[in-house]
Amino acid sequence: MTQDPFVPDALIVPVIPPLANAKLGRQLRQVIDHKTKPLGALGRLETLALQLGLIQGGVHPVITQPQIRVFAADHGLTRHGTSAYPSDVTAQMVHNFLQGGAAINVFARQHGLGLQVVDAGVDAEFDYHPALLDCKVRRGSRDALSEPAMTEAECREAIEQGMALVEQLPGNLLIVGEMGIGNTSAASLLLSRLGDLPLADCVGRGTGLDDDGLRHKQQILAQVLQRHDAATTPLAALAALGGLEIAMMVGALIKAASQRRILLMDGFIAGVALLVADQLAPGVHQYAVFAHHSAEPGHDHLLRLLDAKPLLKLQMRLGEGSGAVLAYPLLQSACAFLNEMASFADAGISASNGDAAP
Amino acid sequence: MTQDPFVPDALIVPVIPPLANAKLGRQLRQVIDHKTKPLGALGRLETLALQLGLIQGGVHPVITQPQIRVFAADHGLTRHGTSAYPSDVTAQMVHNFLQGGAAINVFARQHGLGLQVVDAGVDAEFDYHPALLDCKVRRGSRDALSEPAMTEAECREAIEQGMALVEQLPGNLLIVGEMGIGNTSAASLLLSRLGDLPLADCVGRGTGLDDDGLRHKQQILAQVLQRHDAATTPLAALAALGGLEIAMMVGALIKAASQRRILLMDGFIAGVALLVADQLAPGVHQYAVFAHHSAEPGHDHLLRLLDAKPLLKLQMRLGEGSGAVLAYPLLQSACAFLNEMASFADAGISASNGDAAP
Repeated sequence: MTQDPFVPDALIVPVIPPLANAKLGRQLRQVIDHKTKPLGALGRLETLALQLGLIQGGVHPVITQPQIRVFAADHGLTRHGTSAYPSDVTAQMVHNFLQGGAAINVFARQHGLGLQVVDAGVDAEFDYHPALLDCKVRRGSRDALSEPAMTEAECREAIEQGMALVEQLPGNLLIVGEMGIGNTSAASLLLSRLGDLPLADCVGRGTGLDDDGLRHKQQILAQVLQRHDAATTPLAALAALGGLEIAMMVGALIKAASQRRILLMDGFIAGVALLVADQLAPGVHQYAVFAHHSAEPGHDHLLRLLDAKPLLKLQMRLGEGSGAVLAYPLLQSACAFLNEMASFADAGISASNGDAAP
Repeated sequence: MTQDPFVPDALIVPVIPPLANAKLGRQLRQVIDHKTKPLGALGRLETLALQLGLIQGGVHPVITQPQIRVFAADHGLTRHGTSAYPSDVTAQMVHNFLQGGAAINVFARQHGLGLQVVDAGVDAEFDYHPALLDCKVRRGSRDALSEPAMTEAECREAIEQGMALVEQLPGNLLIVGEMGIGNTSAASLLLSRLGDLPLADCVGRGTGLDDDGLRHKQQILAQVLQRHDAATTPLAALAALGGLEIAMMVGALIKAASQRRILLMDGFIAGVALLVADQLAPGVHQYAVFAHHSAEPGHDHLLRLLDAKPLLKLQMRLGEGSGAVLAYPLLQSACAFLNEMASFADAGISASNGDAAP
């Protein structure tokens, strides 16, 4: 019996290099503890410096050419009124990104990060623009209430495009942002399924639903979950529940971690992509620095699952990568104090009176 | 009867212009709400933009030539073993600042803030250095266990030097940092007295005391408080409980607020200076942006008194202004989104489906 050429091959994911390195960890701790400050006085900046050192495999981590990619797609499920905004806004916001007028443009300029928009599956056609990568798998995901949001082949294509795109990327730090009217629904569904959490814990107001809107969203999402009861593996769940931008972010995160890039994580939706990525390629989360604790309620539960404490909590709920880029200067600060601060010996400073002497 | 020429004049503090401006507040809210984002989606960055607009009196706030001044002094009380480090470290750290090796140097360089060290009362003599301002009132405060830490004249001189120094300052944003072995003791005493709080709530481990050290510190501080039972006005308490760098920061904060500068506040000790400043010149706190929630336990209580929620909480407890400068990019972001983001009308983007339409 010949193999059916239309049966898709299994997804091939790269190996994620382990981060743990006891010797390097001790070296980093020693460098940090000899800086001219009381032991531990830089708090979470010290833990961050340690992680960045481990990711880059040395005691002098440096961030070069940091990149933001904003993944955009539409969602078939929005026809059931699950979002406060109409689907058209996805394409309109893509134009806004390309014109430099969105929040993420402003913050990327402020901190000098490279920014491109990735069309993973927007339900519109765009003219050529140097800041737009055309990776469109299809115009919007399917309506998950009646069929899987993506076929397995579409889902795999999205993941593979995400991986391929990172191959071309300069620099050693990646922020994945997203724009897709309806994508908090997809993220909530994935979190509930793959995190084994009650749906009610995972669903919020997204871009601003009122009480009735929220109730309606919860009802629709409960039906979708039931419809795809059998989709329990990470890949099957991702395909069934969507969306295209989330799948492409999953691929990007996996590839970036395999190349030991720093993953600077935005809020809820990017975080769900990380959860999926970590289940497909265990270890991805070790490369993640959690930037912002989102106001979207599902993010609490997601962070608990990932055992993560974001650097910032500013009640933001915008997406686009905006929470991540706001935390970026803290990563620069962590590298800078490690590389530039004097040690007690350098500065000729007395040790403390106590046993905790540096 | 002629007036005794040696009775010092009352401290003259400038008037703090009121911040509230309902019309400008509405204008700012409208600009913010018409940006291309769901209502409120930038969270605390929106509140921050509002405050910065009110401080500068317009809808296009801009930060220019931001300045850090690190106020250094020694404390007579340290002879009783209230700190984990010997007093010499104050002068040694001043040298470290002048050589550019301390944390605050690293972070100031990263973000392009001007930095100078102010000798408010270090118990050492320094050679001329362009980054060192000589405002020394005396070599260290007096031992508050046996006499007031400053005479009233010394205290007033310190405050007036702080005010004079701000007169010469470029830019429209000020960070006051501090360095002074023993200054968490002075700050704890002031917080307890002027905040009417139990001493135990106000005292922490400072630069790293162990349990015995902490108990000893608490005992000494309780004696100091009792010794200066009668010092209940802000000025009398400041003079009695110290220290010179705190008094000079008080003056700097008052003058800076009177000139409508943004006060970007570091942690515990700078925060106590703000408490004193606000009691001497009511309204100063309106100009304050709280940057970092310190790991020093008294800071919790201080923040509650000031009804303040800092932007960052990174378990830092270093002083120097380090927590403040780490939050500085968030203030730039707040200005940038207000000045640069497109509105829905600019970008031709659809309103939301609901009533919350921008």
